[in-house]
Amino acid sequence: MSGRLIGVGVGPGDPELLTLKAARTLAEADVVAHFAKAGNASNARKIVEGCMRAGVVELPLLYPVTTELPTDGTAYRDSIGQFYDQSAAAVARHLDAGRTVAILSEGDPLFYGSYMHLHVRLSPHYRTDIIPGVTGMSGCWSSANAPMAQGDDVFMVLPATLPEPELERRFADADAAVVMKLGRHLGKVRRALGRTGRLARAVYVERGTTADAVTMPLEQKRDDTAPYFSVILVPGWEKRS
Amino acid sequence: MSGRLIGVGVGPGDPELLTLKAARTLAEADVVAHFAKAGNASNARKIVEGCMRAGVVELPLLYPVTTELPTDGTAYRDSIGQFYDQSAAAVARHLDAGRTVAILSEGDPLFYGSYMHLHVRLSPHYRTDIIPGVTGMSGCWSSANAPMAQGDDVFMVLPATLPEPELERRFADADAAVVMKLGRHLGKVRRALGRTGRLARAVYVERGTTADAVTMPLEQKRDDTAPYFSVILVPGWEKRS
Ligand SMILES: C[S@@+](CC[C@H](N)C(=O)[O-])C[C@H]1O[C@@H](n2cnc3c(N)ncnc32)[C@H](O)[C@@H]1O
Ligand SMILES: C[S@@+](CC[C@H](N)C(=O)[O-])C[C@H]1O[C@@H](n2cnc3c(N)ncnc32)[C@H](O)[C@@H]1O
Repeated sequence: MSGRLIGVGVGPGDPELLTLKAARTLAEADVVAHFAKAGNASNARKIVEGCMRAGVVELPLLYPVTTELPTDGTAYRDSIGQFYDQSAAAVARHLDAGRTVAILSEGDPLFYGSYMHLHVRLSPHYRTDIIPGVTGMSGCWSSANAPMAQGDDVFMVLPATLPEPELERRFADADAAVVMKLGRHLGKVRRALGRTGRLARAVYVERGTTADAVTMPLEQKRDDTAPYFSVILVPGWEKRS
Repeated sequence: MSGRLIGVGVGPGDPELLTLKAARTLAEADVVAHFAKAGNASNARKIVEGCMRAGVVELPLLYPVTTELPTDGTAYRDSIGQFYDQSAAAVARHLDAGRTVAILSEGDPLFYGSYMHLHVRLSPHYRTDIIPGVTGMSGCWSSANAPMAQGDDVFMVLPATLPEPELERRFADADAAVVMKLGRHLGKVRRALGRTGRLARAVYVERGTTADAVTMPLEQKRDDTAPYFSVILVPGWEKRS
């Protein structure tokens, strides 16, 4: 009898934004796995600190150090691919022993999450359940009190890694938009918003729903540095009624 | 001292997908308001049945009967506008008396929700907090075990009410998409998916995460009738690695 894999969404940051189901699942799981960078506590793991059962087995999955590799090269891709293969094998050993393994995922597991790399490797072979979570973007627009989309609005999620002309084209063609994975791409996103007349509506949110949250109109943000956990919101519903 | 307005996301349907914060808020609120059609229990109200405090004041906001009015005419718009004005006034009376009013919202409150019509009327005047929720679409792709978006994917939410040529143009230009508000628009959506080569990937989900959930490849759905609580998912991440 093999075990059960559960992809657990832990929400945007505030531990109270875990679902009842996620909290129960963590209290019942044999093993809790989470991705982390060596030397850094995983963000998802921090969120569930108060929900961990005493004595639960933890399986940290530590990203390889790839800082010296260009992220568009094959060396980087191979290194990351191998890491996901090895991580899936480590989880599989627990599943083969009949254990229930919960894999933590920041926000929602099937929405731009690292968990998905294990999901595609393991779910064909093991019983798998997903517990959806509040996404980071929902947490951010709630913190910002920004009504995002209504009625016939077309809503888009755009990774900031897209080329500047493509960001510009997309902003011009969306009623509402969220830009994720900002990091060092903020300047580019800001220019594309400016050229499409959307800059004045844009809101910047950093670590939404956490104690360190920062929310401000993008026009008031003076510098172009942003941490990994930040988004830009372009609320829709312009012809509000 | 006026009271406090809280927009509470109650998630996609499974009562266990409420957040810990939503459950606590409902246990503490003086008044719980929810939208409903006369004669029908509100879907959001059903989800929280097990979380309602004994003796809490309930404020059902009953949509006017508008079945004989064309939804693109001014008579319909006026009737609905008046209804939101009156609903906001009814909530404001409780807030003016110093009460905490929780307004239920299916899924996430600021994402295509009716709550937003009260939010724009009341939040400029009263202390307002939003508790984000798991969206209907997250619940649906989790039920369907469908990895939705990854990496550089552009993700779009499209209301099925859009004209057929626009749906077609959008499907051709999205890596991943969710179509909401299907109802009588399913045939149109199916044709637009077919003409853009996306039909084989599309998944139909009805009442995701509830006991009555239906999930199937859209190609296997023989008829073009769909209830209000249904979506079509077009998962992205095609060049998966
Ligand atoms: C790899 S994606 C994971 C998304 C996650 N699975 C979800 O459902 O939100 C990480 C990106 O999500 C966004 N994000 C997630 N949580 C956030 C938060 N609390 N505040 C700001 N941005 C957040 C950031 O743009 C970040 O770069
Ligand atoms: C007015 S919108 C409200 C969306 C909600 N605020 C949210 O965050 O999901 C209603 C639409 O959401 C979708 N929906 C919401 N919950 C759903 C569920 N459990 N199953 C299928 N579709 C759902 C349907 O397309 C429905 O027409």
